[in-house]
Amino acid sequence: MSMETKISFIKEHIRDFPDFPKKGIIFRDILSALSNGSVCKVLNEVLIQYIKENFPDVEAIIALESRGFLFSFSVAAEFEIACIPIRKKGKLPGEVISRSYELEYGSDVFEVQKDSLKKPGLKCLIIDDLIATGGSMEAVIKLLESCNCDVIGCLAVIELVDLKGREKLANTPVHSFIQY
Amino acid sequence: MSMETKISFIKEHIRDFPDFPKKGIIFRDILSALSNGSVCKVLNEVLIQYIKENFPDVEAIIALESRGFLFSFSVAAEFEIACIPIRKKGKLPGEVISRSYELEYGSDVFEVQKDSLKKPGLKCLIIDDLIATGGSMEAVIKLLESCNCDVIGCLAVIELVDLKGREKLANTPVHSFIQY
Repeated sequence: MSMETKISFIKEHIRDFPDFPKKGIIFRDILSALSNGSVCKVLNEVLIQYIKENFPDVEAIIALESRGFLFSFSVAAEFEIACIPIRKKGKLPGEVISRSYELEYGSDVFEVQKDSLKKPGLKCLIIDDLIATGGSMEAVIKLLESCNCDVIGCLAVIELVDLKGREKLANTPVHSFIQY
Repeated sequence: MSMETKISFIKEHIRDFPDFPKKGIIFRDILSALSNGSVCKVLNEVLIQYIKENFPDVEAIIALESRGFLFSFSVAAEFEIACIPIRKKGKLPGEVISRSYELEYGSDVFEVQKDSLKKPGLKCLIIDDLIATGGSMEAVIKLLESCNCDVIGCLAVIELVDLKGREKLANTPVHSFIQY
C-alpha cells in the first residue's frame, strides 16, 4: 500500500459525531477508528514512515496527554528514542516545568519533568491526535523552547483546517495526515 | 537480551518519588524511565513477546486513560488487532457504556464506546502502567463483562504487591513485569 492509500484507508474509518462535545461542533473521532486492527497497523506504519523520511535526526517524541499518548510510545520504541510525556498540572512527580494556556473559558496548565529535557538543543517532535485552534500545541512549543529544546516539528493525525491552528505555529513545521 | 535481562534493565530506570501524590506514598514512576529510548524499545519488546507467548488469541487491547494509552497502541498495531480506549466520563462521543467505581474519596466513572465492543465474546486484554489497589482495573473488568466481552487477562508494567490489588481480580489472569 502506498502512503496515500494508507491515509485514505484510515480516513474511511474516522467517524463523525455532530454536536460533540457541544452543539455546532462536528467531532472527528480517531479513537473509534482504532477498533479496526488494520487501522492501528496502518496508522503506526504511516507515522513511522513519515518520521523516517522527514525527521531522521529526531531525538525525542513529545507525547501529549491523553490521546497523543496513544501514538507516541510506538514511534519512540521503533526509533529507540525518548518518549517524553506532557501532562496536565499536578500529575507528574518530581521537579516540573509548567506553562499555562488559554482555553475557550478559563485556562489550563501543562507540565513536563525537568530531568527529561536535560540535553540542550534536544531535537523534539510533538505528536498529537488533532490540531484544532492550535492553542495547546502552541503552549507545548513554548514550554519546550523555554527548556532550550529544538522543536523540529509537530505531527497530528487530523487537522481541522478552518480553525487555522497552523497560523499560531508558524515557526514550527506542522504536518497532518488527514484534513477536514 | 533475555526477557529477565530486559525487565531488570527497565526496572533500573524506574525512579522513586517519595511523598507523591501525597505524604507516605512512594510513587514508582515509569514515565520518567521513558526518557531513555532503550527503555521504550525494550519495554515494547517485552509486552509484545509476553502477549505472543501467553495470549496468542487476543482480539482487542483495552487501553486505560491516560498512562495505559502509552503502552496499548503499539501492541495493537503489532498484532493488527483493535485498540479500545476506556476514558473518564464525558470524553468519548457517541453511545457509551459506563461504570462507576470508588476512589479513596468519592467515585469516578469509566466509559467505553458501545460500537467498539459489538462482537459477543470479544477476547480482551487490558493494559495499564500500574496495579495498585486494583479498584480501577476491577471496574474495567466489570464494565467489559457487562458488554459480553471475554476478559482474558490484565497486564501491568508495575505492581505494588502490598496493596493486594490482585485479590480483587481473582477471576482474571493478572501479570505484572515489575513488582514492589
